[in-house]
Amino acid sequence: MTIYRRMAVIGCGLIGSSICLAARAEGVVGEIVAADCDPWVRARANELTLADRICADAAEAVDGADLVVLATPVGAIAEVAQAVAPSLAAGATLTDVGSVKAAVAAAMSAAAAARRDVFVVPGHPIAGTEQSGPDAGFATLFKDRWTILTPAASNDRGYDAAVARLAEFWRALGSNVEVMDETHHDLVLAVTSHLPHLIAYNIVGTAADLEAVTRSEVMKYSAGGFRDFTRIAASDPVMWRDIFLNNREAVLQVLSRFTDDLQTLADAIARSDGAALETLFTRTREIRRGIIDAGQERAVANFGRDQPDPASRG
Amino acid sequence: MTIYRRMAVIGCGLIGSSICLAARAEGVVGEIVAADCDPWVRARANELTLADRICADAAEAVDGADLVVLATPVGAIAEVAQAVAPSLAAGATLTDVGSVKAAVAAAMSAAAAARRDVFVVPGHPIAGTEQSGPDAGFATLFKDRWTILTPAASNDRGYDAAVARLAEFWRALGSNVEVMDETHHDLVLAVTSHLPHLIAYNIVGTAADLEAVTRSEVMKYSAGGFRDFTRIAASDPVMWRDIFLNNREAVLQVLSRFTDDLQTLADAIARSDGAALETLFTRTREIRRGIIDAGQERAVANFGRDQPDPASRG
Repeated sequence: MTIYRRMAVIGCGLIGSSICLAARAEGVVGEIVAADCDPWVRARANELTLADRICADAAEAVDGADLVVLATPVGAIAEVAQAVAPSLAAGATLTDVGSVKAAVAAAMSAAAAARRDVFVVPGHPIAGTEQSGPDAGFATLFKDRWTILTPAASNDRGYDAAVARLAEFWRALGSNVEVMDETHHDLVLAVTSHLPHLIAYNIVGTAADLEAVTRSEVMKYSAGGFRDFTRIAASDPVMWRDIFLNNREAVLQVLSRFTDDLQTLADAIARSDGAALETLFTRTREIRRGIIDAGQERAVANFGRDQPDPASRG
Repeated sequence: MTIYRRMAVIGCGLIGSSICLAARAEGVVGEIVAADCDPWVRARANELTLADRICADAAEAVDGADLVVLATPVGAIAEVAQAVAPSLAAGATLTDVGSVKAAVAAAMSAAAAARRDVFVVPGHPIAGTEQSGPDAGFATLFKDRWTILTPAASNDRGYDAAVARLAEFWRALGSNVEVMDETHHDLVLAVTSHLPHLIAYNIVGTAADLEAVTRSEVMKYSAGGFRDFTRIAASDPVMWRDIFLNNREAVLQVLSRFTDDLQTLADAIARSDGAALETLFTRTREIRRGIIDAGQERAVANFGRDQPDPASRG
């Protein structure tokens, strides 16, 4: 059953291309129009037949679309939203997929301020891989994942209906949907995603710069745990630069807690306080069990490109 | 072809049980005797037929063995080595599997100081999972992994032959073998394994203690990167307590570098220095490529128990 007549996706990276493939696979949109500013990406998107039509110009792509998905890095959202706003169809829903919501919601709302006939509903599918680009997309990326929508406060029935319709679209792509305040979203993601990436980028950088241990040794003996971090630290640099720049306060807030806790842990090691270490290490196991029990783990047998390896030990 | 007539494995956890299974699968030992101080573990080891004979007493287990593998947590090595030393057969090789080598080598050498007819060859197979206990072992755990041996400086032919024989044993189990100075081993592992585990334990602890984000939210939205850390942070608490206590200086040294680098990164975020962030994030990608190119990644299709999920994104 089609939920939108025509969907325009701006940006054909991992998420944009996956939305195109998933929407087509589920038959929930009548027509798909994609746009990308990069000629090489457009050529690949054409070869992969990601959309019915692929444009260089975002404003051209959104013409007549009742769903417009901005799937660019977070830092490009303001500019793209401004570029497409005058061309949006009356009654269209404008959404995005960015990992930061307060800054993005403000940018999209400002861009569409003169378009009272358009519904701005920020969104964030929590799914992905460390791969990027049009070839990285796949139709089942959102299956059993969570998509968070952060709609504006509203007592407008039309807006509420637009939010419900977008939620229906994400559910049709296999995702669970949660509605959340944008500021809370940004804090939750700072903990569950942004800080982990920052830490992973940092440890890989630290390891690469040590004089006493060669890079070749780091790679050779990476099965001891390090390798898991390198996977996360291989994620798209521009996307992650933009996330940190646009969720600065929440990231620095949780980073400060992390740093304090790490100092406490270092102190425990320095004074050989085995009991303190064992207590923490036992407690963290419970969190893992909670994630497994909640079914947030899933098999990856059909995902062969760059599988992480479970063999990790001291 | 049998390399050792009788192997005694002290400790039937993930590594000990895997050594038993792998050695039998490859037919490289004539007889396997295992020991564990925990009655429940002994019962499971019996049910799993990990060894030809399973003892409560380590000293009894090593009787007549030409290879003795101490596979206990690092903190128990000194005590176990002292307990078994008088019972070691003449000409036996005494080794271990601990993730720390300087402290363990000192403890084993001290314990066997009165036994000039015994060869002490510390070892460390860099392989494992976050699982622990006798049920966690499997015969192919060491395949295509690296085992590091840190023999003492020697100009004794008998000792050199014992080292070569132990290397042959590990190669027969599918592992690559590297010989390294024990202090350098401890620094390399501090970077590639101990620091990653410390960081993972810490971030999971930090996330669990935040007031503004519930544990349930942390688990629900863990696909954004956090989940990868929870897997590492589910590793055996006692084993890891002992590693940090016994490799304190190297761990604190690399931790100090990590903390300095993290502060630099935090400063870049605080002053919105996108160029600095992008430079680091681009550089870390190269390390990942190096690991993949070096073939340090391998498929995990047949490892279904608790697979990590590659879907991780902001």
